[in-house]
Amino acid sequence: MESLSIAVLGAGNAGTTLANTIAVNGHDVRLWTVEDDVAEDMRSNRENTKYLPGIGLRENVRICGLEESLDGAGFIVLAVPSTVVRAMCGQIKPFLKHYQVLINVAKGIEEDTLMLMSDVIADAVGEDNHIIVISGPMIANELARGIPTAVAIAGTDEKAQNLIQKSFSTDFFKLYKNEDMVGVELGGSLKNIIAIAAGISDGLGYGSNTKSALITRGLAEISHLGAAMGGRPLTFSGLSGLGDLYTTCTSKHSRNRRFGENLGMGMNVEEARKKVEQVVEGIFATKVGYQLGKKHGIDLPITNILYGISHEGRTDVRAEMSDFMQGFNEVHF
Amino acid sequence: MESLSIAVLGAGNAGTTLANTIAVNGHDVRLWTVEDDVAEDMRSNRENTKYLPGIGLRENVRICGLEESLDGAGFIVLAVPSTVVRAMCGQIKPFLKHYQVLINVAKGIEEDTLMLMSDVIADAVGEDNHIIVISGPMIANELARGIPTAVAIAGTDEKAQNLIQKSFSTDFFKLYKNEDMVGVELGGSLKNIIAIAAGISDGLGYGSNTKSALITRGLAEISHLGAAMGGRPLTFSGLSGLGDLYTTCTSKHSRNRRFGENLGMGMNVEEARKKVEQVVEGIFATKVGYQLGKKHGIDLPITNILYGISHEGRTDVRAEMSDFMQGFNEVHF
Repeated sequence: MESLSIAVLGAGNAGTTLANTIAVNGHDVRLWTVEDDVAEDMRSNRENTKYLPGIGLRENVRICGLEESLDGAGFIVLAVPSTVVRAMCGQIKPFLKHYQVLINVAKGIEEDTLMLMSDVIADAVGEDNHIIVISGPMIANELARGIPTAVAIAGTDEKAQNLIQKSFSTDFFKLYKNEDMVGVELGGSLKNIIAIAAGISDGLGYGSNTKSALITRGLAEISHLGAAMGGRPLTFSGLSGLGDLYTTCTSKHSRNRRFGENLGMGMNVEEARKKVEQVVEGIFATKVGYQLGKKHGIDLPITNILYGISHEGRTDVRAEMSDFMQGFNEVHF
Repeated sequence: MESLSIAVLGAGNAGTTLANTIAVNGHDVRLWTVEDDVAEDMRSNRENTKYLPGIGLRENVRICGLEESLDGAGFIVLAVPSTVVRAMCGQIKPFLKHYQVLINVAKGIEEDTLMLMSDVIADAVGEDNHIIVISGPMIANELARGIPTAVAIAGTDEKAQNLIQKSFSTDFFKLYKNEDMVGVELGGSLKNIIAIAAGISDGLGYGSNTKSALITRGLAEISHLGAAMGGRPLTFSGLSGLGDLYTTCTSKHSRNRRFGENLGMGMNVEEARKKVEQVVEGIFATKVGYQLGKKHGIDLPITNILYGISHEGRTDVRAEMSDFMQGFNEVHF
């Protein structure tokens, strides 16, 4: 296997895990972070004690400055929060060579522009560089410990995808190609809407029947929207859609599910959010989903109900959710 | 709403729950069971203390003999185990009128013939009667308690489907039409294969990443087989596929998931089955899935691995499951 030079930008939980996983196959991995203390910690202790405690960094993960990490790298992994992707691209643009392939793992849609991350990246760096996205059920702490993990990979260059698939895959990490970049990106971005709905069902004390129905119909809703935006419906039933959604809806740690559970137990939006203590991405995703539904003329019953609850001050969550049983059209797959 | 006469054959957990749910809208519901003591219990106590304790029967659920239950009924609900469906049909055939619509809720495929339940029914009663199937995430104990539940309905007569949809639906029970009867039936029959795989992942101590990947790829596998058998791929992402699967894979009570968990923890097939104490349908479903894959020429990697473990004596479950990460083709939705 050809040894590749790969820059990983962002050394949070996901970035550090990816750097260490890619390093299994012996590549030259350069890890950069904006946080100087985290970089210093990793240099001194060969561990990211802040974001990935307990996992030693492999020898061939080098902690680098930004220019140093980019210099001669064939691949640049963007592992920063989605809200930072545009700024990050602006920062690396002056150093970027046309042959460097950008690999995005940030999930999200840009506020105001409603652009997918791949479009944000293309908009920020220009048209010369290929863009690849990786998305799927990838809880970093599990992958970091060698728990078998499978994700979807999509992008604008098939040769690059093939090389990444071959070069990144290990015994416990497997990448599956998908031709539908829009679908792969959308699934990871919109799944948190459904996770909130599933959480509300939990909080209301509803059972497995209700939660299954919400997840199934929520996924259908996202598939309809995704198809209108150019994605393939079946992509949403794949690793980057259903796979990621399953993880989110069953995890006790999912902030979005917990936010919904708090709502179902009778808290208002502000209380429910405060109790979660961290950013609840699904609140923003709900707004984006609502706006995208309007823009593309797609009926999104669950998204609309959640929008009413989280952005329009509707407080009777039980009554709103019972609309879910009544308000749909009668035919469904 | 027109008041209908509906026979429900079988007063187990599911049959009793369905009879009581249909009765919400005031129909004339006749409930029959082969177990005389259960019939007597329900007549005396207005409760099925053996199979649905704690739920009072509605006034308009009448406990009837077989002929009495069928006489003048427009709809006949078959709520007996799938292994009994053919015999049950033989038993009612002498009394059957051509206008009576059979509604099947038993999930399964017939051993030896590999026939779907709707085909078994048509084979047993002849071609004169329309057949409807109802399938989805419907844990009876939840539905019986009024927990919101949504299921799929498909069949050979659209007018009958419309009438059932309208007449059976309540505030907490909703039926969604699906044009794909083969897909609706198959999903409920084959989901238990995936549930075993998900259980093995749990038993091996793998994480949410692995389980999500198994469920997603397992569903894809069933969709491929289903398409070859005449179903629509998206049906398997609907209530009767993914919806039912989600319930099975997350439920602590799922016998199939528990059987898999026991295998993952190191028991052999016999020990794992004994510990579950009840019939593990997924063992049989695995054999059927394996045979159907061969018959239709569809590659079913997870099913094949499970067949090796449960029917061919392969005992190194961890090694077999690691094939799941290695042996697939590289492109996937």
